[in-house]
Amino acid sequence: MQKMITKLDSSQADFKQRLDTLLAFEASTDDAIESAVGKILADVKARGDAAVLEYTNKFDRLPNGGATSMAALDVSQEELQAALAAIPEAQRKALEVAAQRVRVFHERQKQELNGFTYTEPDGTVLGQRVTPLDRVGIYVPGGKAAYPSSVLMNAIPAHVAGVEEIIMVVPTPDGVKNQMVFAAAAIAGVTRVITIGGAQAVAALAYGTETIQAVDKIVGPGNAYVASAKRRVFGTVGIDMIAGPSEILIVADGTTDPDWVAMDLFSQAEHDELAQAILLCPDADYIAKVEASIEKLLPQMPRQEVIKTSLGDRGALVKVRDMDQACAIANSIAAEHLEISAVEPRQWADKIRHAGAMFLGRFSSESLGDYCCGPNHVLPTSRTARFSSPLGVYDFQKRSSIIHVSEAGAQTLGKVAAELAYGEGLQAHARSAELRLK
Amino acid sequence: MQKMITKLDSSQADFKQRLDTLLAFEASTDDAIESAVGKILADVKARGDAAVLEYTNKFDRLPNGGATSMAALDVSQEELQAALAAIPEAQRKALEVAAQRVRVFHERQKQELNGFTYTEPDGTVLGQRVTPLDRVGIYVPGGKAAYPSSVLMNAIPAHVAGVEEIIMVVPTPDGVKNQMVFAAAAIAGVTRVITIGGAQAVAALAYGTETIQAVDKIVGPGNAYVASAKRRVFGTVGIDMIAGPSEILIVADGTTDPDWVAMDLFSQAEHDELAQAILLCPDADYIAKVEASIEKLLPQMPRQEVIKTSLGDRGALVKVRDMDQACAIANSIAAEHLEISAVEPRQWADKIRHAGAMFLGRFSSESLGDYCCGPNHVLPTSRTARFSSPLGVYDFQKRSSIIHVSEAGAQTLGKVAAELAYGEGLQAHARSAELRLK
Repeated sequence: MQKMITKLDSSQADFKQRLDTLLAFEASTDDAIESAVGKILADVKARGDAAVLEYTNKFDRLPNGGATSMAALDVSQEELQAALAAIPEAQRKALEVAAQRVRVFHERQKQELNGFTYTEPDGTVLGQRVTPLDRVGIYVPGGKAAYPSSVLMNAIPAHVAGVEEIIMVVPTPDGVKNQMVFAAAAIAGVTRVITIGGAQAVAALAYGTETIQAVDKIVGPGNAYVASAKRRVFGTVGIDMIAGPSEILIVADGTTDPDWVAMDLFSQAEHDELAQAILLCPDADYIAKVEASIEKLLPQMPRQEVIKTSLGDRGALVKVRDMDQACAIANSIAAEHLEISAVEPRQWADKIRHAGAMFLGRFSSESLGDYCCGPNHVLPTSRTARFSSPLGVYDFQKRSSIIHVSEAGAQTLGKVAAELAYGEGLQAHARSAELRLK
Repeated sequence: MQKMITKLDSSQADFKQRLDTLLAFEASTDDAIESAVGKILADVKARGDAAVLEYTNKFDRLPNGGATSMAALDVSQEELQAALAAIPEAQRKALEVAAQRVRVFHERQKQELNGFTYTEPDGTVLGQRVTPLDRVGIYVPGGKAAYPSSVLMNAIPAHVAGVEEIIMVVPTPDGVKNQMVFAAAAIAGVTRVITIGGAQAVAALAYGTETIQAVDKIVGPGNAYVASAKRRVFGTVGIDMIAGPSEILIVADGTTDPDWVAMDLFSQAEHDELAQAILLCPDADYIAKVEASIEKLLPQMPRQEVIKTSLGDRGALVKVRDMDQACAIANSIAAEHLEISAVEPRQWADKIRHAGAMFLGRFSSESLGDYCCGPNHVLPTSRTARFSSPLGVYDFQKRSSIIHVSEAGAQTLGKVAAELAYGEGLQAHARSAELRLK
């Protein structure tokens, strides 16, 4: 019988090596995909709309012979509003509550970053200005993995940042439009929706076409073609992170209902076969209870096949020495989602240096954060929480330095700059400073 | 005779096209470099110190048969302090003044980002925590392009952010150590200096070796091998931007001494043949004066050959309709360095949306900012100021979301989350929220 989930103990001699093996994930690059994407990008850059239209008709198998113009691929604001009116009221209300909470949290983020200026005694003014990006593109996957919550999480921070044009692209395989995605776009302040996808959509956003103005940054998840295209256009435009498989790490002190913890592990594992769900706990009896809950609850889950593969291949229940050790291991894993399911979670949270988002206490299930707590659900994966942050308002803003040197300031600064410039062999730099000396 | 510098007029019918041609810069990728770097990275990952040592002895042509151990490549804090004591006093004082000013500006940046928490009426706590990276690597080029000012600009923001380990790598071609670079490291708070460089140094920092702990992020400029290596390790570690050629754009109203403006153009052009220096001005007579200054001053410049090539190939003097048009063009160029050399610069600065750093007024030469005003001299190039920022304290910090849902909060949030999760077909997410309902 296939093992349900790996069990590890931190006192094992080879524990570190076994944990590292479990955590290892190398995103493979597929030469066929790379080559196909390179061609699509070059083609869209050269032929614009004509190329986008051809690829869209072909890859998305648009019905009735396909679209004959780019205009046919635009979704009007009326259509978005109609979708919002058409979905069940409970769904609409849930989307609105979620959007409002996400907005409040991100408004708070915006308040943190106002820029500054200060004036020195000689009148020199220095500062930093914070401005929004002009125009961003949001990629939303179509088909099975079409998540309206991702529309909210990507578009609202851009909107709060003050981005004037938010262009969402979403493919409609076989012409099927996802009404809940359109409804979310209506709520989130998306300014234009175009039903294109794949590398051709990324190319259209990055380079611009006759009907689509080039954007400054592209965010949002996508398949391997989209990820490859985003990597390649980086530099021409900004991109968000290239996400790896989703992960949850639960640090439990053994006081939470084991069914809850088992279901939290499932909620990550059901995303896809490569998702990773790990429990760290000092209590072996509790780990056994969680394992029993897993076996009991799994047959009830509609996505049990995905969950089984994910838990079996990449999941783990880990017995640790104590909660301190759990925190140390959590720092080395730097998980995307970290639940601290404990009676006094803050004492442990204070020991955490690296995590995308921390969910404290037994009521803070990751799923609440995925949808409606307010913080973003786009988080750094694959240990990148060591150096990167959740998607936020700051991803749609940039800073410019302000330097306004007074005549008096130029006298003192000029001598310092000239000394260093001569030291570096950059004489024009030195002369440029010296010309300002009286 | 080779033209000294391109002259354009915004009233020309083909102006936009000619400006675009001038601005176009495509970083070429060299297959030989890519393949060499790929091999070096894999080799260092597999063999660690032994590989680093071999490549260093070979590529840096270390004297006396080369180094025989990694320990021989470490520079002690005593050696750094000795370098600081050995350089001329004027240089040391200039470095110290520059470092202090850079520190003050970046301390101000740090104050902006403190994180936050807020408590909702039902007791749910939401927030954002800001923490420094644990360990960063700073790449400093050796040989000709060894700039002590870059040591300050890369290391001080990391130090201010609270990064505990700042590891600087700097190659010493032919065994020659740059004392001013070592002195800058002593001042800037670098915790370890290793005299290695190239792709092998990037690999050692990214993957770690027996004697070098893997870092979380690598910053700093380098040659094509270093840039390629940084691109490839991105994801395993964070990286700063991959810099393109340096650029200056001067918007002048014609009131600044034309010699000053000519020298400011030189100060960019002297960096390298691909650097770009452009003047926008509504006054044709003034442009003629700047051109005369260029011809007069160029023969005095030690780096005149570089300047001549840069100005001839990529520079331009552009007659514009008025200052408003100059600002509009400046926004489309999104320059790394933007000088607004005008009597009332702030009125024009208010119209600028995209620039890495803005230098306001005739006394604010770019060279002052390069060395000692305080703001960072590592700035977004090649139009990336549309979506990215100067290097700053924020590049050495990351954010984690905090979500602490109360029991009451879980009742309202759980219903919203479950509704949306069922809508997305993620039943474990929904169940995980519903288990918390009373």
